[in-house]
Amino acid sequence: MAPPEIALTAESGEHYLRGSASTKSFLVSLESIYPTDVSGKGSSSVSSDDEFIHDKSAVTTYTTSEQFALANLCINAIRFLCVDAINHANSGHPGVCMGMAAAAFVLFDNHMKFNPLNPQWLNRDRFVLSAGHGSMLLYSLLHLYGYESVSMKDIKEFRQLHSRTPGHPECTETAAVEVCTGPLGQGISNAVGIAVAEAHVASIYNRPGFPIVDNFTYCIAGDGCMMEGISAEACSLAGHLRLGKLIVLYDDNHISIDGSTDLAFTEDVGRRFEAYGWQVLHVGEGSTEIAAIDRAIHLAKQCRDKPTLIKVSTVIGYGSPNKQNTAKVHGSALGDHEASATRKALNYEYDPFEIPSPAREHMRRKVNEGTFQEESWNGMLAEYQKAYPKLHDHLVDDIVTGKLPAAVDTVIRQTAAALREKSQATRKHSKAVLNSIAPVIPTLIGGAADTSPSTLTNLDCSGDYTAEHRIGRNIRFGVREHAMGAISNGIGLAGYNLLPFCSTFFVFTDYMRSAMRMASMSMTGTLFVMTHDSIGLGEDGPSHQPIEHLASFRAMPNHNVWRPADGVETCAAYFSALSIRRCPSTLVLSRQTTRALVGTNFDEAKKGGYVVYDSGSGDVDGTLIATGTEVSVALSAAERLEEEGFTVRVVSLPCWEVFEQQGKQYRKNTLKVPREFCVAIEAASRFGWERYADWFVCVDEFGRSGKGADVMKSMGICAENVIAKFKEMIDNS
Amino acid sequence: MAPPEIALTAESGEHYLRGSASTKSFLVSLESIYPTDVSGKGSSSVSSDDEFIHDKSAVTTYTTSEQFALANLCINAIRFLCVDAINHANSGHPGVCMGMAAAAFVLFDNHMKFNPLNPQWLNRDRFVLSAGHGSMLLYSLLHLYGYESVSMKDIKEFRQLHSRTPGHPECTETAAVEVCTGPLGQGISNAVGIAVAEAHVASIYNRPGFPIVDNFTYCIAGDGCMMEGISAEACSLAGHLRLGKLIVLYDDNHISIDGSTDLAFTEDVGRRFEAYGWQVLHVGEGSTEIAAIDRAIHLAKQCRDKPTLIKVSTVIGYGSPNKQNTAKVHGSALGDHEASATRKALNYEYDPFEIPSPAREHMRRKVNEGTFQEESWNGMLAEYQKAYPKLHDHLVDDIVTGKLPAAVDTVIRQTAAALREKSQATRKHSKAVLNSIAPVIPTLIGGAADTSPSTLTNLDCSGDYTAEHRIGRNIRFGVREHAMGAISNGIGLAGYNLLPFCSTFFVFTDYMRSAMRMASMSMTGTLFVMTHDSIGLGEDGPSHQPIEHLASFRAMPNHNVWRPADGVETCAAYFSALSIRRCPSTLVLSRQTTRALVGTNFDEAKKGGYVVYDSGSGDVDGTLIATGTEVSVALSAAERLEEEGFTVRVVSLPCWEVFEQQGKQYRKNTLKVPREFCVAIEAASRFGWERYADWFVCVDEFGRSGKGADVMKSMGICAENVIAKFKEMIDNS
Repeated sequence: MAPPEIALTAESGEHYLRGSASTKSFLVSLESIYPTDVSGKGSSSVSSDDEFIHDKSAVTTYTTSEQFALANLCINAIRFLCVDAINHANSGHPGVCMGMAAAAFVLFDNHMKFNPLNPQWLNRDRFVLSAGHGSMLLYSLLHLYGYESVSMKDIKEFRQLHSRTPGHPECTETAAVEVCTGPLGQGISNAVGIAVAEAHVASIYNRPGFPIVDNFTYCIAGDGCMMEGISAEACSLAGHLRLGKLIVLYDDNHISIDGSTDLAFTEDVGRRFEAYGWQVLHVGEGSTEIAAIDRAIHLAKQCRDKPTLIKVSTVIGYGSPNKQNTAKVHGSALGDHEASATRKALNYEYDPFEIPSPAREHMRRKVNEGTFQEESWNGMLAEYQKAYPKLHDHLVDDIVTGKLPAAVDTVIRQTAAALREKSQATRKHSKAVLNSIAPVIPTLIGGAADTSPSTLTNLDCSGDYTAEHRIGRNIRFGVREHAMGAISNGIGLAGYNLLPFCSTFFVFTDYMRSAMRMASMSMTGTLFVMTHDSIGLGEDGPSHQPIEHLASFRAMPNHNVWRPADGVETCAAYFSALSIRRCPSTLVLSRQTTRALVGTNFDEAKKGGYVVYDSGSGDVDGTLIATGTEVSVALSAAERLEEEGFTVRVVSLPCWEVFEQQGKQYRKNTLKVPREFCVAIEAASRFGWERYADWFVCVDEFGRSGKGADVMKSMGICAENVIAKFKEMIDNS
Repeated sequence: MAPPEIALTAESGEHYLRGSASTKSFLVSLESIYPTDVSGKGSSSVSSDDEFIHDKSAVTTYTTSEQFALANLCINAIRFLCVDAINHANSGHPGVCMGMAAAAFVLFDNHMKFNPLNPQWLNRDRFVLSAGHGSMLLYSLLHLYGYESVSMKDIKEFRQLHSRTPGHPECTETAAVEVCTGPLGQGISNAVGIAVAEAHVASIYNRPGFPIVDNFTYCIAGDGCMMEGISAEACSLAGHLRLGKLIVLYDDNHISIDGSTDLAFTEDVGRRFEAYGWQVLHVGEGSTEIAAIDRAIHLAKQCRDKPTLIKVSTVIGYGSPNKQNTAKVHGSALGDHEASATRKALNYEYDPFEIPSPAREHMRRKVNEGTFQEESWNGMLAEYQKAYPKLHDHLVDDIVTGKLPAAVDTVIRQTAAALREKSQATRKHSKAVLNSIAPVIPTLIGGAADTSPSTLTNLDCSGDYTAEHRIGRNIRFGVREHAMGAISNGIGLAGYNLLPFCSTFFVFTDYMRSAMRMASMSMTGTLFVMTHDSIGLGEDGPSHQPIEHLASFRAMPNHNVWRPADGVETCAAYFSALSIRRCPSTLVLSRQTTRALVGTNFDEAKKGGYVVYDSGSGDVDGTLIATGTEVSVALSAAERLEEEGFTVRVVSLPCWEVFEQQGKQYRKNTLKVPREFCVAIEAASRFGWERYADWFVCVDEFGRSGKGADVMKSMGICAENVIAKFKEMIDNS
């Protein structure tokens, strides 16, 4: 294979833009906006491919040979910093870095608004590397543009233990990394969430002459992201919501781990995105044609009523004489020999980790540019404060600082008092809490996966979030659980301190589990409101009845799982979930009615586990430990056991994780007796309950279709069975 | 709202077919095939909607007013049996049943090949109700067409405990239900798997003049199915694989639980499917226009190089004067009053549960027709046996009976012997086992989600399964984990006794968890081969490192989780997984190398847990329990503890579920000491380990990016830490 043609000249600035009929008419309309900028430049070569539509209207910054030469040097600096770091680690994914270096350079250099000295600047453009395996591309960009979070030392520690440059980007490790990516399709879905958040916050705070929130959300995604169902869900919704400031660069490199994408992926991605309602543009030679990339991004930014997909056809591992355009360059270091050959092929005469001075100088200019941009914005903000003092204060408190309003505590306590006597499903309690807090927490935004009449998560104080009504706080996610989770994470991580919640039936967490895990790993407090908690939901049957789900989330690091017993505990669960912002919470709520309990306590429940009933101050024969609607079952059993002369304690354990944090002595005092004398009662798998009990009234098989009460009883979740188990325990002791 | 116009006459047999350019040319080509059949009939009304293309070429059976009247009666019989059963249960989803009754009737009555007396007939057409909440539609069809599995008594027990008519279709409960459906998008993805299986088996067994395997796969899916990412993945692959005998009827009723689909779902589904490479047809009035439905299905059956999506635009809850076309009719019973009003509106003068004799007679004819069809097929099979006796025997043994070849035991034992001395990653052991058994298990078929170079699951004895090469047994699923799982389930449940396997990194089970759960619930032995088992995978970091995943699957009912320690145990795991066909198995395999162990034993390992090392026959100070690569760590620790004078037992616990089945005494003898003296060692969450141990060397936080060995050590998974924990245990006793 011959080395690639790499010389970038003015002549190579041809650009190809593909589009549908609607795109075409959009291009035509652009001509009136930029009638003179392109005047024949770079348009000497017209592709004969019918698929490409030659566009003479859009602008590009890149027109002179000097510009091309400098750009080329910068792009190679990015490329080889990636190659060298991956070689140094002998681990990583050079292919995407080399293929997409040009597109990433144009994006960062000529379009993105950011201040390397303040990665948290509110009005920065957001960038998400959905193809997270290309992490070195992002680290190279951050280093070369002057971010302090990625030094040359960090680059040389790529993929080493405790470095700031882990194998996939982690927002918890590296400043300026917006979200954790790696599992494919998550990032692009997060980006949809970020764009949702931007439009929402802008609709609240922007005023004529004051575009306080006015950033784009950019994303680089690969073939893998495009194959994943989660991205299909998220992008369908993004089209529906007309998120015009979302711009995705799709690295169409035709290579996946197995080999050519032709092995499994021959659909027409552009056409699919047009079906979603996106603008679709196509850059034919994305590894080199910076003018075309530049024009495409310009066009994308102009189109405000549709998100844009720029299909950037690239050569994976561009420049490597022996490995480019093969699966070999996807996930393995090039090796020293091939790196040298690539240097030669690309005419790049610099040592490993050496940055050409002109490139460094050019790219570091962004530090001053960005500082100036932020200062200008700060100036505008000062004027805004004078013009709209109240709005400004809200912006600072809610969006910039993100502190939970003090009123929340009061409101939730009032709600707890109001719900104390109410016997109803905990999903109905949840509805009451959500609607009590929504008016006092303006940053609360979320919705359900087409289940809001069942999960009862609609915020009555607000309208729907739509293309026309960005201020709405109820998001209709459609039947798209996985995207819902990732979009919610994106909303939370967008940098506006929004407080996202999302909702479906608990069993369908199986569809969104990776997004829920990413929330945990990203240390972001997404609130997952999950109803239909158990076999108690009844007729829908085993496919809808969670069994192993409580255990599966209790096993997940940094994830609080709440299963409240009544209205009071539901309030405590919400309060905890809202207060702890570095950990997501899943609230598990019942469809079945449960009675108001006497012994529940708001402040005690916040500890995750506590005594709801005790026979007296002396010793007890045994302790019943239960969660959710089974606390009521345990209390009934305790009552009857006492009638038979036993002394019993009942412990409610709505949140294991928070209970574990209370310390050993508290836990011991709460349970009072060793686990040999404890019965765990939960309409779910006993898996994990051995931590607290040796006796179980649980469900270790799939559920059944029938009336909820019948199913509960038929599977042993009833006071009679608890009593029998308790006696068996006593007999065995 | 006015009652709908329901009279079906010859004139109302207009049909609308929408299609792309390629569809159009296909329609044109059809004219030569059926030049006379339609001769102007039913073509008097042409829609003015540009979206619809009027087709004069395709045939329909329905041309006379007598046919329409009888069809209408049958359709109403289906509709009201659903309405009445749902009313009786006061639970269920009448909307889809009423809206899609006409389409389902035409499909079953005029197209599907089945024998109600033998739901297992090999060459039956397969039908999947992906919109599983419409279960009553399926039960009504099965009852009315004469299946014994759904009697009128069963219909009246709809959604009651222990009935054969559960809330969502369950193949484990009701004969003739092909797959369990309910969680949206699973069914349509199963259907893709069934179509994959059909084409595969046909390519092996069919011979000129002997179309032994020659069935279609039909599916009814709704808006919810279309919104789910899993269906996007599956249908993209179906288009790529050109599964021409897959025909999906999409119930486009514009209503979801939340209300109008316009709230969240405005994409152009047809265009999306065209982008996938499907033929797309459109029936404009699907609740009534049986001739159009009929023509569309005829056209779909003719198109053999693409799957077909028939978008059937319907009115949800068709016929209900006050509820049709609203979300109210989606998931709640109509109620007696509205049922009466609907009877009046549809001019249907029969009592609840009464079946009009002409309808019953007409539909029950299928018993004779189906019996005749099967008998004809049996005749062909007898001739086939004479012409191809060897093939016939294979068909009977492998496909009809599905017994595991006797050679498997020998081959796996030989492989175990060959691997005994090999120190390598268990994924490499897995590769050896897979490739040793593939030649002797011709029904083994599967692949990976674009990870085959990493998961090492390619069967060297076979080629890829492609549109041109259906005989191949390596399926390239692409980066589509969720669809991979559901397609694999479909392959296993297709009725050919195929043995499907699928593979990706263990952490990405988060993307396919619902499919894995459906395998468990469906009691089908899908083999999930999951590599990169733990933090030991190294550099890819926490997003790729499973922590809670072992626990999460151990908690799932009817799912065997194997984490083998070396080559011998990997062989045992495969043998168990292949032998147990009513339970799926997940094999969890390492990327990191592990040494060949002395104490492992094939037959003992098959018990799920056993002693791999013991200090002697006397008492022991403590037992180390480990799985996978940590068995090696435990053995190292034991060796050094003995040097220090302790007596130690090491138990390998590769499969908890199988171990639990061995009985209490075996478990007790194996562990020897109470859990107070047991240390559990596993590079994963300790969650659940309290069942066996009070001391843990586990990982209860997210992993880290770094060299595998560094990460393992930094998180405490090393002999030193085991020794320290063991001594702490002894000191505490």
